[in-house]
Formats: sequence, C-alpha cells, structure tokens
Amino acid sequence: MKLYWTPASPFVRKVMVMTHELGLVDRIEIVKTIWPHEWATHTIAFDPPDFVVANPIGRIPTLVTDSGIALPESNLICRHLNAKAGARLIPGDSDQDLPLLRLWALGDGALEAMIARRAETLRKPPERSDNFIEKQKDRIFRCFDGFDLSLLESSNLTIAHITVAVACGYMDFRYPSDNWRDGRARLAAWYELFSNRPSMRENTHGETPQRR
Amino acid sequence: MKLYWTPASPFVRKVMVMTHELGLVDRIEIVKTIWPHEWATHTIAFDPPDFVVANPIGRIPTLVTDSGIALPESNLICRHLNAKAGARLIPGDSDQDLPLLRLWALGDGALEAMIARRAETLRKPPERSDNFIEKQKDRIFRCFDGFDLSLLESSNLTIAHITVAVACGYMDFRYPSDNWRDGRARLAAWYELFSNRPSMRENTHGETPQRR
Repeated sequence: MKLYWTPASPFVRKVMVMTHELGLVDRIEIVKTIWPHEWATHTIAFDPPDFVVANPIGRIPTLVTDSGIALPESNLICRHLNAKAGARLIPGDSDQDLPLLRLWALGDGALEAMIARRAETLRKPPERSDNFIEKQKDRIFRCFDGFDLSLLESSNLTIAHITVAVACGYMDFRYPSDNWRDGRARLAAWYELFSNRPSMRENTHGETPQRR
Repeated sequence: MKLYWTPASPFVRKVMVMTHELGLVDRIEIVKTIWPHEWATHTIAFDPPDFVVANPIGRIPTLVTDSGIALPESNLICRHLNAKAGARLIPGDSDQDLPLLRLWALGDGALEAMIARRAETLRKPPERSDNFIEKQKDRIFRCFDGFDLSLLESSNLTIAHITVAVACGYMDFRYPSDNWRDGRARLAAWYELFSNRPSMRENTHGETPQRR
C-alpha cells in the first residue's frame, strides 16, 4: 500500500499510529508530499503531481490500496487498515458502541477545527479573521471538554483513543500557548501515559518542507 | 430518535434521504435549529441552547439516539440508521467495496468544499478571499470529475449514490451559475433520474430562518 504523507498533518498521524498499532508498518510505502503555505487560500501545484489524481479532494492522507483504489479520507483509510489486520480497533455499530463512536467523532471534530484554524492563521491581513480563529478555538475546547474521560480511561485501545491523543498532540505542536492542560488534569494525565506508546513516539509532528 | 435539523444543510439532507430510503421517517423527531449568518466567522448563540451540549462541535446534523447518545457527524448518523434498519445502504469493508467507499468519500469531499465556500461567501470584505472561493470551486469540480459514473449507474442504491446526488442538488441550490452540468451530461442524466426519487423530492433545500 502507498500512503501520501506529511509530518505536519494530524490526520496523517492518526493513520500512522493506527498502522503501527495494527502491525502494518512494513506494508506501507510512504510518499512525501509538499505543502507550500499558499494551500490555505489557493489551489497549489500538487507535489507529487499524481497525488491529486489519487485524491481529487486534494487532501492528505490518501492511501492507495493493494488493489489500486485510492482512499481519500483518514477514517476510511483506518477502516481499511483495520479490516486488513483483522483487528478490533474500530468500534462496531451496535448500541453499546455508541459512546466510543461519539468520542471518536468529537476527536475528529476537534482536529477539523484545528486545521481550519491553521489555514486561517496562514492567511495574510486583512483577509485573516481573528473572530474565525476564536470560533475554532471555542470549538476545540468544547470538544476537549466533551470527551468522556471515564470511557477513555477504562476501555481497551480503539481509534477513539488514538484520535483524542492525536488531538492533544497537535495542540502541543501548533498551539502550545493555549495551555490545553489548564483545568484538564485528568485528560492531561491520560495523555501523558498514552503519548509514551511507541506508536505515538515514532510518529511525531514536524513541519512540511515548503518545497523540494 | 431526535434530529437537529435545518433545510439549508446538505449533510442534513443526506441523513434525511437515508432516513426515507431506510423507511425510518416515523422514528425521527425533527428539532429545528437557527443559524444567523454570523456562524461563518463567530461562535453564535446556539438555538436551541441544548444543541451544543448534544454536539460540542456545533454542527448539524446531530442525532440523539433512542439510548440517549448524541451522534455529532452525518456519516456516523447514517451508519447508525442503517444498522437500526438492518439495511444494506452502507458498503462493507471488503476489497470489492472499495470503489463505492471511494465514491462516497469524494461526494463528501465535494460537500465539505461547498460548505467551506458558503462560509467564505458570508464573510464581508476585506476578510473575504476570492482565491479561497476559487480554491473550493476547483476542489468541487475535481471531485465531480472524479466520480465513477459506471459504478453510479450500475450498482444498487447506497449512501454513495445519495451523497453524490445531494452534492449535485446543493450546487443547484447555492451555485446555479456554476452550471455544473456543462460538460457533464452523463452525470446530469443520472442526477435527473435520481432526483425524482420521493426521498429526494420530499427533502428539498430551503433557507434556514435567521432567527425565531
């Protein structure tokens, strides 16, 4: 399988941590992508050029499966990897799975707000909207405060845990001055433990090169 | 079940069409929500106020299940409804399902770009970026041109079909001057037929009231 990748994307990190936890690292070939900051407001020249054929949305991660189908969205990729590994990191669709499914979705909601905020931060005045940034920050922290901590602490590893951990990690990478740990000692303690997993430590964030 | 709803959202429409196709219309209580145009750049006063407790992401649709768990994302809602109906509108995760899963994701990618564009359109100059609008338009049309038309025409009804149809319908609602049918006669012919389904005709778009 082939994964279009950058170290700066939390959605890529989610997929990489899943890959590691599922024991599929050796099955994935990494394809590095380039994201000049103009991505925030412009259609960029995608690099490598075949990336946008694989994913017309123009978004990473994108996984090209062994059968040659390109999957253009992180959760779809995670579901595919989970199926390939015969594993149980994705909750089912029964009623008892609903709390974990909600937790997973709130983790992703926080991530989406972080990326919307990042794109806004890259805009230049007067196009940059401080109100928009504030709106996304509100959204992030409502999600953080909506995480079911008992569930996070008590249940076995799932994609919900991974998504929440990646959300905490991206806050440290992009918005450390937000001090998300303030008033969230329990979440911080959970993350402290989780972030020591090899899957997290071997997939840390870094800046995407602006050009080759 | 209780669904937070507005007639202006394509993600709500996707859920409503699914609900209709699954024969679950009588099981859903509709809760109307209000979206002043400031939503594009500000944290608004959510109406009704309990909505944001149900969904900290602050986004519709949101479904409160019979067991009282609030699901904050449209595909998660669709998966739950599909499970409740014992139906087969959601592809599985085998290799032969991959083309439909990709089609579904490209439909959602187009919808996300349409909503990002809508939010940008609601910004006032000098904060509004014509480049950003153009970027989202590029994205929408790359997705439209990436739809697998043979698959759309040949396979039984799935959420992929519904998502693509809702994407076409939202273009007619918000961006008719884009003339998406130009150069896409085959997609237009498919949509012409699909849009005559009762599930589509009984769930058409309309503006959200700005206030009660």
